[in-house]
Amino acid sequence: MLRLYDSRLSGNAWKVRILLTQLGIPFERITLDLAKGAAAEPAFRAKSRFARVPVLELEDGRTIVESAAIMLYLAEGSPLLPDDRYLRAEVTSWLTFEQADLLRALALPRFYNMRGIADQMKGRIADFQEGAYAALAKLDDWLATHDWLVDNSYTIADIGMFGYVSMAPQGGYEMERFPAIGAWLARVKAQPGWVPLVEEA
Amino acid sequence: MLRLYDSRLSGNAWKVRILLTQLGIPFERITLDLAKGAAAEPAFRAKSRFARVPVLELEDGRTIVESAAIMLYLAEGSPLLPDDRYLRAEVTSWLTFEQADLLRALALPRFYNMRGIADQMKGRIADFQEGAYAALAKLDDWLATHDWLVDNSYTIADIGMFGYVSMAPQGGYEMERFPAIGAWLARVKAQPGWVPLVEEA
Repeated sequence: MLRLYDSRLSGNAWKVRILLTQLGIPFERITLDLAKGAAAEPAFRAKSRFARVPVLELEDGRTIVESAAIMLYLAEGSPLLPDDRYLRAEVTSWLTFEQADLLRALALPRFYNMRGIADQMKGRIADFQEGAYAALAKLDDWLATHDWLVDNSYTIADIGMFGYVSMAPQGGYEMERFPAIGAWLARVKAQPGWVPLVEEA
Repeated sequence: MLRLYDSRLSGNAWKVRILLTQLGIPFERITLDLAKGAAAEPAFRAKSRFARVPVLELEDGRTIVESAAIMLYLAEGSPLLPDDRYLRAEVTSWLTFEQADLLRALALPRFYNMRGIADQMKGRIADFQEGAYAALAKLDDWLATHDWLVDNSYTIADIGMFGYVSMAPQGGYEMERFPAIGAWLARVKAQPGWVPLVEEA
């Protein structure tokens, strides 16, 4: 069985759990306690050259790191990743835009809030917001005229974008500015097989 | 003929020029003057939803944005992108790591230096360096025991990583700390068909 190393609150790992569930692929979930330094342990480092989650471990023991790479690997041959070469490039384009322009800028202010250190990180948060609001405006422009990111259908590009964008308010982002993003987030959450970040008790 | 919209000094566009040259694919190069606001013009925005270079325009007029997506598209079926599904995931993994962890942190300090505003951006540069030195250490660890990023052969993962890492000193990074990266940069530059960022007059 596939094994997914994640953490309770990682948005990048959440994307992979949504995808595995929507593809109907069974997997064993191994949830690391990052606050206790689990990502730095040598046994985990051997699986994850970048010392972070998510990590997908295949049945033969090989591992894949980086959520975009894991999603492209898993979705191959499914309706969530088009076969057409141009459309695949469109999917990769959105996945890398999210990683380059949004991931850190949305995830780190959220992390500072969770740790209660947002006040001392004020300057850094302002820097992140400057770039991320510009990127979110481009995303909102696109979604004002498209239901989905690629080819008018739900793909892993939507899952990859959804994770941290849906959690942006936890980092202090005012998402009311982006009504088209809000409507698209609701469409993604309404997809069959969508799972919440943390399961209710 | 394929058309590449780039700028004189964009590292992301440089990667695509190296790849097109190494694949022996003829292309028309259209170099924008970003300082004059060329990326914001409506005719260019219609080609580039993220308002930036590089943009690859296909013969039918469709465009692909984001360097990683362009490289994956172009390298399909060539020796620079393995066919094997696992190895392709490895390539994507390195490409997204570079975009998420290194691109902005290496490119923006370089940009501040070129604009002569590095002094007023000191705090921001220190923030970038904190993350980027950790990422560069992981890259150096890998290259200490591998000649290339994926499957012991030169692929687009190497080209994607090469661009901004090779220019890191222009952003004030002390790259002597990373001898394995230095040796790998020299190997990449020695590949047939490699082209410099700016052609000598």
